[in-house]
Amino acid sequence: MTAGADLKATIREIPDFPKKGILFYDITTLLKDPNAFRSAIERMQQQFENAEIDKVVGIDARGFIFGACLALHLKAGFIPIRKPGKLPADVYEATYSLEYGRNALAIHKDAILPGEKTLIVDDLLATGGTAAASVDLVRQIGGEVVSAAFLVELMDLKGRDKLKGCEVFSLIKY
Amino acid sequence: MTAGADLKATIREIPDFPKKGILFYDITTLLKDPNAFRSAIERMQQQFENAEIDKVVGIDARGFIFGACLALHLKAGFIPIRKPGKLPADVYEATYSLEYGRNALAIHKDAILPGEKTLIVDDLLATGGTAAASVDLVRQIGGEVVSAAFLVELMDLKGRDKLKGCEVFSLIKY
Repeated sequence: MTAGADLKATIREIPDFPKKGILFYDITTLLKDPNAFRSAIERMQQQFENAEIDKVVGIDARGFIFGACLALHLKAGFIPIRKPGKLPADVYEATYSLEYGRNALAIHKDAILPGEKTLIVDDLLATGGTAAASVDLVRQIGGEVVSAAFLVELMDLKGRDKLKGCEVFSLIKY
Repeated sequence: MTAGADLKATIREIPDFPKKGILFYDITTLLKDPNAFRSAIERMQQQFENAEIDKVVGIDARGFIFGACLALHLKAGFIPIRKPGKLPADVYEATYSLEYGRNALAIHKDAILPGEKTLIVDDLLATGGTAAASVDLVRQIGGEVVSAAFLVELMDLKGRDKLKGCEVFSLIKY
């Protein structure tokens, strides 16, 4: 049994969401279970226990949940990557393909100082489009992407192949 | 000086966002400052140190940042309230007015068990439309709303008057 396999029992599988043919792994049932939530966060924190991280980047919106807890634990700053129009100051934007459709993301230009060591966090690594766009955005403003961390990874979709030059960690693998 | 006033120096004020005439308090500059971020979270945690909370509800999306950290600290489950179409299982929805426009929110019907003590968390209490709709949603599924907590409160907008029957806490008041 791999590291986070015991947590699968707390994840609800919903067929045909958000589109027919997609099996959606609903992590809200993990989040609402205090022990599962705590265990998931603590195991993600342990993975980076000795990492030197200046900034933790959370991807809108579920990445905020895990990213904020990791930033707090690592004594790092927290940076949101958001959909366009949500961040009020000057941003860089990136467009990308995702598992079902296209999307765009933005980061504040002054979010990360040149050379700062950055950890990117999201709940799910699927095809890797969102994560790869986030890596690009962090690099565009000068940050060094040390690692990307996910609660769940869908192995068949090979999303980690899109994340070059950084460590990729996921806790629960399907 | 009130409790969180020292943190105001880390909040960026942006005029005319998202609409002309609105002064937007940009908390991303607080979040990216490791000391300010940690201090803000710890002071919110201290406020609820002795509270018995079963579920912490975070409001999409910035409420996830503070809500997740509070849930972890309180050994509670974390519940997201989201825009319609984002939650994959059966939901209740509420429509409400906000500072600039109208919006709708949704909660999973099975997110909270009847009688569970609930803390609602968001970054900002403005007119209170979003928070009041969230209180209604939690009560609709049977939860007891013990408190609502916010990083920032805009006092002139009297949002707390819309939150009946629960304690209201905010760290930084304008």
